[in-house]
Amino acid sequence: MTAMFAGVLPASRIYDPARLDAYVASREFDRPTLVVDVDRVELQYNALKAGLGRADIHYAVKANPATDVIHRLVQIGSHFDAASRAEIEICMGQGARPETISFGNTIKRVSDIAWAYEAGITLFAADSEEELEKIAEHAPNSDVYIRLIVEVSQADWPLTRKFGCDGDTALRLLDYAKSLGLNPVGFSFHVGSQTRQASMWAPSLDALAKIWHAAKDAGHDLSLLNIGGGFPAFYDEPIQAPTDYAAAVMQMVTEKFGHVDRIMAEPGRGMVAEAGVIVSEVMLVSRKSDRDMHRWVYLSIGRFSGLAETEGEAIRYRFETERDGDPMGPCIMAGPSCDSADVLYEKRPMPMPMTLKSGDRVLIRNTGAYTSTYSSVCFNGFPPLDVVCI
Amino acid sequence: MTAMFAGVLPASRIYDPARLDAYVASREFDRPTLVVDVDRVELQYNALKAGLGRADIHYAVKANPATDVIHRLVQIGSHFDAASRAEIEICMGQGARPETISFGNTIKRVSDIAWAYEAGITLFAADSEEELEKIAEHAPNSDVYIRLIVEVSQADWPLTRKFGCDGDTALRLLDYAKSLGLNPVGFSFHVGSQTRQASMWAPSLDALAKIWHAAKDAGHDLSLLNIGGGFPAFYDEPIQAPTDYAAAVMQMVTEKFGHVDRIMAEPGRGMVAEAGVIVSEVMLVSRKSDRDMHRWVYLSIGRFSGLAETEGEAIRYRFETERDGDPMGPCIMAGPSCDSADVLYEKRPMPMPMTLKSGDRVLIRNTGAYTSTYSSVCFNGFPPLDVVCI
Repeated sequence: MTAMFAGVLPASRIYDPARLDAYVASREFDRPTLVVDVDRVELQYNALKAGLGRADIHYAVKANPATDVIHRLVQIGSHFDAASRAEIEICMGQGARPETISFGNTIKRVSDIAWAYEAGITLFAADSEEELEKIAEHAPNSDVYIRLIVEVSQADWPLTRKFGCDGDTALRLLDYAKSLGLNPVGFSFHVGSQTRQASMWAPSLDALAKIWHAAKDAGHDLSLLNIGGGFPAFYDEPIQAPTDYAAAVMQMVTEKFGHVDRIMAEPGRGMVAEAGVIVSEVMLVSRKSDRDMHRWVYLSIGRFSGLAETEGEAIRYRFETERDGDPMGPCIMAGPSCDSADVLYEKRPMPMPMTLKSGDRVLIRNTGAYTSTYSSVCFNGFPPLDVVCI
Repeated sequence: MTAMFAGVLPASRIYDPARLDAYVASREFDRPTLVVDVDRVELQYNALKAGLGRADIHYAVKANPATDVIHRLVQIGSHFDAASRAEIEICMGQGARPETISFGNTIKRVSDIAWAYEAGITLFAADSEEELEKIAEHAPNSDVYIRLIVEVSQADWPLTRKFGCDGDTALRLLDYAKSLGLNPVGFSFHVGSQTRQASMWAPSLDALAKIWHAAKDAGHDLSLLNIGGGFPAFYDEPIQAPTDYAAAVMQMVTEKFGHVDRIMAEPGRGMVAEAGVIVSEVMLVSRKSDRDMHRWVYLSIGRFSGLAETEGEAIRYRFETERDGDPMGPCIMAGPSCDSADVLYEKRPMPMPMTLKSGDRVLIRNTGAYTSTYSSVCFNGFPPLDVVCI
């Protein structure tokens, strides 16, 4: 595999798995801080790229838009998927060329479309007539792809029906796009966030390939397939290794879709989550009553300051403390705000050291994705999650 | 009632109910914006104060910490309940004296406790041994009140067990506080957010009064009762008018607790929600499939840019558009981000005009509380909710 990376990996840049922990251990942090190892992002990009082969990686900027992350990804040849004008500006500010950026949100501001068009963006997503009309008016003659809804998903978090349209609608939208003077180039979809094994893509790909072939049979000249995200990160359940995973997905895509001129993939979580660790601390350990089974552990970070994805206890992060050798006991974990919804784990309490107390440092592993930007501006007067890239 | 306000209401400051709408109608807003009528906050303060009588109002700053709101409340004699150092700084920056500010979060940073003590704050909340130890070490000799858990609630959103302790624990904590050199002055509680009618307080007050009397019987010299928040705002269900509501609560408190030297109340939502309106716009109206019952309406604001309290469809805001005279039909309402969880109303679709389209302005009423500070820093590259006070 080394040969594949020869063109993009300078020989001097070797990933050191101990660097992140050494950095964190040697420093004090005045508030909850996400530390991201940018070399780890590069390692992951290369691992995914090795499996994805000829598919273009469009990094989903929303997962972590830190400029150092974007800068490194530009350097090593990544393309980008942007959700808004601000995300496009971040990418171009780090040197990304506009033709490498897709404007993938199906719900765009009209003024953002016009701005993006002026900036040289030529590829837009849509899943409705009105969005196509907005694009046709403010970015005439652009390339568009139609986002399909994924009705069957084996993801940990299947997406809602918020995005995409069904096959009949999609075929009609291809025609409609053409009638508006746009260039409809193909389809996109998203199998669902955190799809842990490549084999879980199969039912979705089967259903989507049927629509693809129906569109071709109807005479549509499709050149682009955007397979979206879903690439997993390691939290508490096993996941397939990135290169194997990506290669298996690509093999299924080839089998089911046949030859496709251009394939895009949009890893976000799968690119950056494992490169980051949040440094937080224990604010308080308490018991509500003598009859309570579990202690409550309150951290300096909660659902409104970066850990939004614990909603419904969906994501189960790994915590580390310096007392992990001590006897462990189940704890209800909560954030520091006065909001009673700011509870991280209650239905499934988290084992934590019995000796834990206020002031102890707590590391939250693999938190490089979907943490910093979710953070509220100042809920309860707490500052947003700080971000340091190394 | 006018006579009661004579001391605090300058004759020239008369609330004009048309001012907010006139301001909004006459202006363009480049991004989702919360407009707050500070005169309306003053009107509400006076209405609540008229019912609360001798109880001190400690405005819950977290509901809306806009400096203009705090400034007006300082001017008219409000006290404050702060959740963090930053909130204390906002209040003192607007002229609030430290003895009018309680540090009501039961989960405080040690460095914030020390800072607050130096700044002159003398009243702190606690519900656990460890928190008392933190206060005793960093704010020695301070007044503390113990937060009780409310096990029975008729609130729209009963609080979780995150805050407070049971009666046995509370009595032990009074002793423990004394042994640490603190001055335990009483109890606090919270009946639950959005308790729509005063009568709904009764079961909670009965249970809490038993603990109060048990503590007095045990020889504790209690001088402070903090009845917390729960004062409602008008969303989609009827609520009792503020003066009647507050007076009824106070009457029950007197009946059940007997004479109490000092009573505090902490309205937040009930003080500011109705003073604010969010100006947003329609980004897109679409249908996923010909077979779909409902349209999807995507707004420029969603769960991650200010409408966090729509989680689980808990709060049901009132929307207004210029097309409200047109035929209406049920819509699924969603935010603009690429996050599939960013859906506002799906289980109970919202009636909206059938003619609604991209670019239409949408007003979201009574959104002055718990919106601006929940807003994420830059999720998907969207800026936080803007705030304008008039």
